[in-house]
Amino acid sequence: MVGIIMGSISDLKVMQEAVDILKEFEIDFEIDIVSAHRTPEKMVDYGKNARLRGLKVIIAGAGGAAHLPGMIASLTTLPVIGVPVKSSNSIDGWDSVLSILQMPSGVPVATVALNGARNAGILAAQIIGTSDTTVGTKLEQYKEDLKVKVAEMSLEAQKMNALK
Amino acid sequence: MVGIIMGSISDLKVMQEAVDILKEFEIDFEIDIVSAHRTPEKMVDYGKNARLRGLKVIIAGAGGAAHLPGMIASLTTLPVIGVPVKSSNSIDGWDSVLSILQMPSGVPVATVALNGARNAGILAAQIIGTSDTTVGTKLEQYKEDLKVKVAEMSLEAQKMNALK
Amino acid sequence: MVGIIMGSISDLKVMQEAVDILKEFEIDFEIDIVSAHRTPEKMVDYGKNARLRGLKVIIAGAGGAAHLPGMIASLTTLPVIGVPVKSSNSIDGWDSVLSILQMPSGVPVATVALNGARNAGILAAQIIGTSDTTVGTKLEQYKEDLKVKVAEMSLEAQKMNALK
Amino acid sequence: MVGIIMGSISDLKVMQEAVDILKEFEIDFEIDIVSAHRTPEKMVDYGKNARLRGLKVIIAGAGGAAHLPGMIASLTTLPVIGVPVKSSNSIDGWDSVLSILQMPSGVPVATVALNGARNAGILAAQIIGTSDTTVGTKLEQYKEDLKVKVAEMSLEAQKMNALK
Amino acid sequence: MVGIIMGSISDLKVMQEAVDILKEFEIDFEIDIVSAHRTPEKMVDYGKNARLRGLKVIIAGAGGAAHLPGMIASLTTLPVIGVPVKSSNSIDGWDSVLSILQMPSGVPVATVALNGARNAGILAAQIIGTSDTTVGTKLEQYKEDLKVKVAEMSLEAQKMNALK
Amino acid sequence: MVGIIMGSISDLKVMQEAVDILKEFEIDFEIDIVSAHRTPEKMVDYGKNARLRGLKVIIAGAGGAAHLPGMIASLTTLPVIGVPVKSSNSIDGWDSVLSILQMPSGVPVATVALNGARNAGILAAQIIGTSDTTVGTKLEQYKEDLKVKVAEMSLEAQKMNALK
Amino acid sequence: MVGIIMGSISDLKVMQEAVDILKEFEIDFEIDIVSAHRTPEKMVDYGKNARLRGLKVIIAGAGGAAHLPGMIASLTTLPVIGVPVKSSNSIDGWDSVLSILQMPSGVPVATVALNGARNAGILAAQIIGTSDTTVGTKLEQYKEDLKVKVAEMSLEAQKMNALK
Amino acid sequence: MVGIIMGSISDLKVMQEAVDILKEFEIDFEIDIVSAHRTPEKMVDYGKNARLRGLKVIIAGAGGAAHLPGMIASLTTLPVIGVPVKSSNSIDGWDSVLSILQMPSGVPVATVALNGARNAGILAAQIIGTSDTTVGTKLEQYKEDLKVKVAEMSLEAQKMNALK
Repeated sequence: MVGIIMGSISDLKVMQEAVDILKEFEIDFEIDIVSAHRTPEKMVDYGKNARLRGLKVIIAGAGGAAHLPGMIASLTTLPVIGVPVKSSNSIDGWDSVLSILQMPSGVPVATVALNGARNAGILAAQIIGTSDTTVGTKLEQYKEDLKVKVAEMSLEAQKMNALK
Repeated sequence: MVGIIMGSISDLKVMQEAVDILKEFEIDFEIDIVSAHRTPEKMVDYGKNARLRGLKVIIAGAGGAAHLPGMIASLTTLPVIGVPVKSSNSIDGWDSVLSILQMPSGVPVATVALNGARNAGILAAQIIGTSDTTVGTKLEQYKEDLKVKVAEMSLEAQKMNALK
Repeated sequence: MVGIIMGSISDLKVMQEAVDILKEFEIDFEIDIVSAHRTPEKMVDYGKNARLRGLKVIIAGAGGAAHLPGMIASLTTLPVIGVPVKSSNSIDGWDSVLSILQMPSGVPVATVALNGARNAGILAAQIIGTSDTTVGTKLEQYKEDLKVKVAEMSLEAQKMNALK
Repeated sequence: MVGIIMGSISDLKVMQEAVDILKEFEIDFEIDIVSAHRTPEKMVDYGKNARLRGLKVIIAGAGGAAHLPGMIASLTTLPVIGVPVKSSNSIDGWDSVLSILQMPSGVPVATVALNGARNAGILAAQIIGTSDTTVGTKLEQYKEDLKVKVAEMSLEAQKMNALK
Repeated sequence: MVGIIMGSISDLKVMQEAVDILKEFEIDFEIDIVSAHRTPEKMVDYGKNARLRGLKVIIAGAGGAAHLPGMIASLTTLPVIGVPVKSSNSIDGWDSVLSILQMPSGVPVATVALNGARNAGILAAQIIGTSDTTVGTKLEQYKEDLKVKVAEMSLEAQKMNALK
Repeated sequence: MVGIIMGSISDLKVMQEAVDILKEFEIDFEIDIVSAHRTPEKMVDYGKNARLRGLKVIIAGAGGAAHLPGMIASLTTLPVIGVPVKSSNSIDGWDSVLSILQMPSGVPVATVALNGARNAGILAAQIIGTSDTTVGTKLEQYKEDLKVKVAEMSLEAQKMNALK
Repeated sequence: MVGIIMGSISDLKVMQEAVDILKEFEIDFEIDIVSAHRTPEKMVDYGKNARLRGLKVIIAGAGGAAHLPGMIASLTTLPVIGVPVKSSNSIDGWDSVLSILQMPSGVPVATVALNGARNAGILAAQIIGTSDTTVGTKLEQYKEDLKVKVAEMSLEAQKMNALK
Repeated sequence: MVGIIMGSISDLKVMQEAVDILKEFEIDFEIDIVSAHRTPEKMVDYGKNARLRGLKVIIAGAGGAAHLPGMIASLTTLPVIGVPVKSSNSIDGWDSVLSILQMPSGVPVATVALNGARNAGILAAQIIGTSDTTVGTKLEQYKEDLKVKVAEMSLEAQKMNALK
């Protein structure tokens, strides 16, 4: 099971893409609002019990001084995927990217692109896929589908150009 | 009493300046290594008990994805002063500055300049000086001393130039 | 009493949040427009007389080459909280952040996040709360309220997800 | 088994830390130089055969316009961990960080901090630990060891300060 | 013939300007969607066969972690012109600029300005013009036309000012 | 007389403020479109003849790779004021700021803020005011007017706050 | 006469180049240490009396949160030239550049390149040269000398290359 | 023939790599110091006569406010390759990168990486190779040699690791 957490419900507009892709891959997940700065004890409980509760991977999204992914990683030995969310007063996203990415030696966070929640979901699937061949097969199929979409776009681009 | 904490003893080369200025102002302090990412439970204890243990202000220094100041601020209602420390793999200091400064609404950290531990100490003194006139008087004297040093530098600069 | 100043009335749309939170905490404040660059003498008077006039903390908001917080800090030994305001021709907020944060040794400014006026108000309350237990109690309550809001958001996020 | 690849042998001074931590965790690995720009066909072969050859995770380090991690991720459904290496003509590390982190939707790279090869190794162990309890136990022990080191540093910092 | 490729049809709104200027110069071109991350094998084929298929120059546009131009350059000895496209979650364009520009020694990409597809087309024409005098003459004429437009703007600016 | 030039008529929406303030100060000026990149010879003529034609100061506005101010400065010994204009594909204004500001030793450009055309006009007036007491007096009056506006804003801010 | 001021004698290693070039042009100058943050009253006096004391131009150098140039500009109608000095804890010079350059409308500072004190001196000479033909002639000669140096470098570069 | 120019002989330490690779490819070249800001007329002559004098490609290196590549491009219809050189007071190379890269529509510069003079030479060879099969063949060989070097590095990396 994948745990998806974020600091505020306003992050859900970004984080929903992680939910959607996990549904598409038929991977179990749970979702919760866990704020590093407003509910630090809840965060500690979440991190410490994650493995016991059967989670395999945690996806944590946060913006600004985004401490949630790194703090969760300090509290568990599960892989933690961090999604930098561009908050309303963000300094161009640099704040969330750097405060998730630049973790000190000993406590990694697997960081994805700014607002890259879909990729966080895919990465979670890839991690689960290292020991679950069903998920592995779905990932192969997903990759094939990406190619098909590009082939369709090629035709469209060439048609658009021919028309001009 | 002022609590001075930092994530690693390697930060002490920067943070010592906070210690020194508090000694100069004869303000009590304690010093400890508290790592957000390696000792999260110690950090929670430190933050939650700070006010009860008689601390008035906390100075927290950290580098990289610098979560210590903000996390401590989430655990106490004392004013927390954050010192962004430029770590060895820092991206020019932006990482520690942004992950301390850009705190979400509700949980402020009083951020000072990159490696600005001396100013963190002075700010702690100013906060204490809001209710302690002895400290207030020392701060006034400190400000006067700054002026005297500039006057000395003026003479030196003019002498250097006259000689040329 | 907390003094809230800013360089232009256009900054009030950001700075109003500092006013609002101080009202919520029932902390006395005054508000004024003091421009470092257009009214330097008024600024000098404001800074030099602040302590005598009974102010305990000053909150100063400014944008662009934001000199007001640092200059006020040069003129008083009270703690000065700086709010970097993102001005209309701002270079992504970097200008106001850096010209408030990077104060030289000897003259600190307690800097908060870009447009972080609410946090400036809370920080002012925390400073006053170091010697005023009524305010301290309100801050504890405020912190509890933050947790309640997160709990409500958790329910909402889970309900939204269940519905899909 | 973990595959560790990098674009040039000059990256090995950074990437060696990934090797070292995997040895410490007694996790099998292989090491190779695979350059996206100088050996693109070798890279394609490496990526396409990785899963078949029994790899579970790939760690890829690269500097400058760092395409290796993302390109490998385009060629496999295994989780790929990217290590941004600060190259000699790097623009402060931004180039390698951004060209690894900002992957398009569909093809994630689990990015760690600038020069963060040790964390890449730990993250690989965490991924393997999702299905291998021996590794999981070692990770728990590693986390405990981090706490012990902080406790030692606390004593040292307090002793240093007491001496002054 | 000039090959114009891009990672997604969404880049066509930027890349169309390259098409348009090549049409204006009556230079043959072909257009295709080739994604480094979704169709890596198609990309390899495109790059390896480009010279044999009679291409003289390749224009490649991409956003975010923009690997297409550099990867194509790794697969051909033709000059490759890279157009950094500002993608929807771009960190102000820095990601695409740096991941195209900062190529390692041995594999250059001729990078143009952010979203600078028109200039990519002109540069392609200039390269062809080194051995094709017809194109050379058209470029001279294009340069003359630029001067005429400035002369017209001068009159307009002076008239606007006289009216006020 | 002040010469106001810019690379394109699209810059006039920014540069008009320089025109307006010079009119307000009743200082003669001329306006022209001079493009470094499209009309280099016109630019050379403009720069070389500026002093002979009676200009005292030149204000040059440009965006992107903004070469006009620096190139004009290479062609005249008059003071040149550079206005970085934020162009449509600007990387947050950094491009125009840096390509105007960072002139090599020997050839200065007096750079003002991003889109700071009004300040360019005031600076031109200040330069003329070093030898023209009429303009000097107007500048003193302008400075007084700035103070009056702040006083008005103070009243407004206090009234707004009282009403709430 | 030109006034040269700076916030600290440590800035003199950069600012000396302004002194040297003014000596070379035989332009009178004075030098002083005036700190915005440590001697605000001295700064106010300096700015308010500058014109009366016969200064024509002021060159102000400062680092970090560099407020001296802008504050002096707020206190005088003389042209003020700002030199961003890269201080020891500077964030790559961005702090001093932005806090000098990004002045609000109404109060310009003529900013030169990072550590560009020589150019500040030349710009001061150019301003004086608008009404002093002796200085104007020297500036023309200086410009000619720059060309001679380039011609010498051309010969050297060609010789170096021929030898290889 | 390839023209290699740069603004100062101090740039030759970077630009020599362009010379060296052209010698390796046995491509004729000439070298000169041409400064946009100190010898603007020489620059105009160089640009306007380049095609007539038989040049096919121009490589221009410059640092800081690097105007040489873009200005040469404004004066010729030959392809111009720009090398951003990191100067001594550079703001981390951003100044030279942005003032070369961000050319306006109509006047492209083929920009390579910071200090990327070797790639500039290779790109010049690729441009010449579009119509000169001898050079084309050498480029193919150069690409093969890159692969051989990687193979050697692979062995070395594996040996180093085996030894530990």
